[in-house]
Amino acid sequence: MEEVEVAPPRAHEVGIRILCTSLCHTDVTFWRMKDFPGQHPIILGHEAAGVVESVGEHVHEVAVGDTVVPVFSAQCGDCPDCLSDRSNICSGLPAGPGMPRDGTTRFSFAATGEPIHNFIGVSSFTEYTVVDVSNVVRIGPGVPPEKACLLSCGVSTGVGAAWKVAAVEPGSSVAVFGLGVVGLAVTFDDDTSESHAPANNVMSGSSCRLECWPDVLVVAQGCRMRGAKQIIGVDLNPEKRDIGKRLGITDFINPNDTGEKAVSEVVKEMTGGGADYCFECIGSTSAMAEAFQSSRKGWGKTIVLGVSSGGAPMSIPPHDILWGRSVVGSLFGGLKPKTDIPILAQKYLDEELELDEFVTHEMGFHDINAAFELLTQGKCLRCILWMDGARENGSVGVENGRACKAKA
Amino acid sequence: MEEVEVAPPRAHEVGIRILCTSLCHTDVTFWRMKDFPGQHPIILGHEAAGVVESVGEHVHEVAVGDTVVPVFSAQCGDCPDCLSDRSNICSGLPAGPGMPRDGTTRFSFAATGEPIHNFIGVSSFTEYTVVDVSNVVRIGPGVPPEKACLLSCGVSTGVGAAWKVAAVEPGSSVAVFGLGVVGLAVTFDDDTSESHAPANNVMSGSSCRLECWPDVLVVAQGCRMRGAKQIIGVDLNPEKRDIGKRLGITDFINPNDTGEKAVSEVVKEMTGGGADYCFECIGSTSAMAEAFQSSRKGWGKTIVLGVSSGGAPMSIPPHDILWGRSVVGSLFGGLKPKTDIPILAQKYLDEELELDEFVTHEMGFHDINAAFELLTQGKCLRCILWMDGARENGSVGVENGRACKAKA
Repeated sequence: MEEVEVAPPRAHEVGIRILCTSLCHTDVTFWRMKDFPGQHPIILGHEAAGVVESVGEHVHEVAVGDTVVPVFSAQCGDCPDCLSDRSNICSGLPAGPGMPRDGTTRFSFAATGEPIHNFIGVSSFTEYTVVDVSNVVRIGPGVPPEKACLLSCGVSTGVGAAWKVAAVEPGSSVAVFGLGVVGLAVTFDDDTSESHAPANNVMSGSSCRLECWPDVLVVAQGCRMRGAKQIIGVDLNPEKRDIGKRLGITDFINPNDTGEKAVSEVVKEMTGGGADYCFECIGSTSAMAEAFQSSRKGWGKTIVLGVSSGGAPMSIPPHDILWGRSVVGSLFGGLKPKTDIPILAQKYLDEELELDEFVTHEMGFHDINAAFELLTQGKCLRCILWMDGARENGSVGVENGRACKAKA
Repeated sequence: MEEVEVAPPRAHEVGIRILCTSLCHTDVTFWRMKDFPGQHPIILGHEAAGVVESVGEHVHEVAVGDTVVPVFSAQCGDCPDCLSDRSNICSGLPAGPGMPRDGTTRFSFAATGEPIHNFIGVSSFTEYTVVDVSNVVRIGPGVPPEKACLLSCGVSTGVGAAWKVAAVEPGSSVAVFGLGVVGLAVTFDDDTSESHAPANNVMSGSSCRLECWPDVLVVAQGCRMRGAKQIIGVDLNPEKRDIGKRLGITDFINPNDTGEKAVSEVVKEMTGGGADYCFECIGSTSAMAEAFQSSRKGWGKTIVLGVSSGGAPMSIPPHDILWGRSVVGSLFGGLKPKTDIPILAQKYLDEELELDEFVTHEMGFHDINAAFELLTQGKCLRCILWMDGARENGSVGVENGRACKAKA
C-alpha cells in the first residue's frame, strides 16, 4: 500500500472516489508480469464503483456526486463503431496504456513524485482515480455499489456474450467451457499457467490487449436469461456444480471424469448432435477447439471470450467450419457500456439478473493481497474490496478539482 | 467414354436425362485422387441441368418432362435443419457416397455389369443419371439449360455466400480472396497443388467432404447484387482484372505486386482499417489467415468458402478475434436449394444476376478431357459440356421407368 498523488481531471476526464473494487483475471495477468518493461509501477484494477469527485472541462454527462462505474471499454459516441449497432469496439478512443486522449497518467508517488502508470484507462486499486468520460457509466439509484461494481467488467462480459454476441434463442442448447477461477493455475491440456503470464506481445502498439474472461457461471446466467433450455457447464472445479445448478446450469461435465471420451463427444451425446452455442471462457486454445467441435452443424456458433496471451493460435480444421459453423470473438460481451450497463442494472433491480451469488467475499481494500490469493487459488467468484468508510457512507469526501492524496 | 447401364429410379428418386453439365473444382479434386480406395470407378460431375426422364414411387414434386438441376446439397424439408431458417445443411439426408437413402449406386458397366460409384448423389458426367428427389430443383421456363446449370453449384455457392452467409449490407467494403481457377495449380504460399489432391481424410464416415469453391468473380457478383460499394478482388491471375471490372470489382490486388506489404495491409489502406466482409475462395489456410487479418475490427466477418483438403488447419490468433471479428463457413453458399435456386433463376430473368459472363467455353460432352485441361490450366471460368442433340432439342428421349444405356 503506497501513498500516491492523484492529479485533477483534465478536459473530458472525471475524478472518481472509489467506493469498492473487485479483482478480475486481467489484474492477475498484469500482476504476474510485473517485470514487463515500461508498465511498472502501475495501479491495477478496473472493476469498480465510485462517486464522481470532480470533473474536467467539457464534461456534462456526469456531475459531482453521481454514482458511476468506470469501464475499460470506451464509448465515445461519435466514431463509426459507436454509431453502428454492429460494433462495441470504440475506434474513437481505443483502450491503450495511459489515459486514452494523451497516453499520460494522473498518478505519482506522493513521496518522490515519480509517475505511476495507469492501467487500461481505469486503475481502480486506489481510493481516487481519474477516468475519461467516455469510460464512465452513471448508475441510477437503488443499485448497491458492490453490485454495480460487477457490471463494470466480469458480469457484463459474460451476460453480454449470451445476449449480444451469441443472441441465444429461447429453447437453445448451450455449452459453456470454463475452468472457473481455478483455471488460472490449472492446465486444460496444452496451456500452462505460464501461458497466462504473457510475453511481450501483450501490449501491441497503442492497443492494450485484455484478458477479461467471465466465469462460466456468469455466461450460464446470461444464457438462462435468454431462455436457453439446456445449459451444460464444463469445468474442472467440482464446486461449480452446486452453485451452477442454482444459477441455471442444467448439466455439468468435469473433463476429468469423461474417461476416453473427448468433452465434445459428451456434449454431442447430451444435445443430440452438438450445442447451438458454445462459449469458451478460459483462454485455452485446446478448449476453443473442443468448444468448436461441440457445436452443432448447420448453425453452431462458438463464442470466444477467453484469451491465452502467450498461447498458440486457435486452430480450426477448414473442413469442419464449412458445415455452417461460425466462430466469433468479443470484448466486453459485445456491450456498448453507456447503452447497455444501465439496462443490466435495471434487470438487476427487476430481479431478472442475479448478481448477489457472484459476490462470494467482501473485505477491506487493505486486504487486497488476500483477495489475490483467493482468486488465484480458485476460492472465490468475486471478492469485493471496500475502501475505508465507503461501505457505511458512499457520498462523502468530495473535493472538486484538486489533486488529492490516496492510498493505492 | 464408357457405355454404362443406368438402373431406373427407386422410391423417392428421379431419373434425369442430362442436357448439359459443367466442371467444378471438386470434380478435379476427385479426378486427381483416382486411386482413392473404394471410390473408383466413379462417374463424376455434379453441376448440370437436365430433363426428368422418369420418377420413382412417392415422387410428386417433379414430373416427367420438367427441366431440373441436381444439387449435391439436399433439402428433405422435414429435418430440424430444413425447418430452420438458420441452416442449409440437411440433416435428414446428409451427402455421402452413394444414393442418400441406401448408399447404393444406379450405375454399372454395360459390358460387364460391374458397379460404378455414384458421386455425391449426383453424377452428371453421363447422359442419364438418377438423383434423390431431395437433391432435385425444378427450373421454370425461360432459363436456358446452360445458365440453369451454373445455379446447381458454383454460382449459387458464390452468390449465396454474399447474400445468405455474409448478408452483405449496402455500402459495404468487401475483399474477395481468390486465385481464380489458376489457383488449382499455383501456390498462395503454404499450399501446394498437392494439398488439393486430398489424402484419405476426404471421405469421413457417411459424410462426403466437398471442395466446391466459387470463383472470386462469382462472389464479387453476389456482393455487387447486395449493394457493396467497394469490392476488392485479390487474385494472382491478372486476366481477372478486366472481366472483374465488368462484374463489379472496383479494386484489384495481385499478391505478386504488393512488394513487402502483406495483402491485408493493402486492404486495410484501401478500406481505411479493414474490409467489412472478407471472402476466402481458395482453400489456402494462409489466405484464410490473410483474409481474417484484412477484416475490420468491430464487425469484420470472414467467410470461408474454399477448402484445402489435405492442408493445415486455419489458424486464428485468439487476441485478434476478440475485437468483434468473426469467421463463418458455409456449404453451397448457405442456400437451401429448393427455396433459393428458383429465386436466383428469377433474378437472372430479371437481369439482376449476371450468368452469361461465366460461360466462357462450350463444347460437346465427348470433349470432356479438353474441358478438364481448360479448368486446371485456369483458362476458363465455366466450360459447358453439351450432350449430343441436347443443345438443339432439350426434351426428347423420355423413356419412363426403364433401365437405359448411356455414355458416361
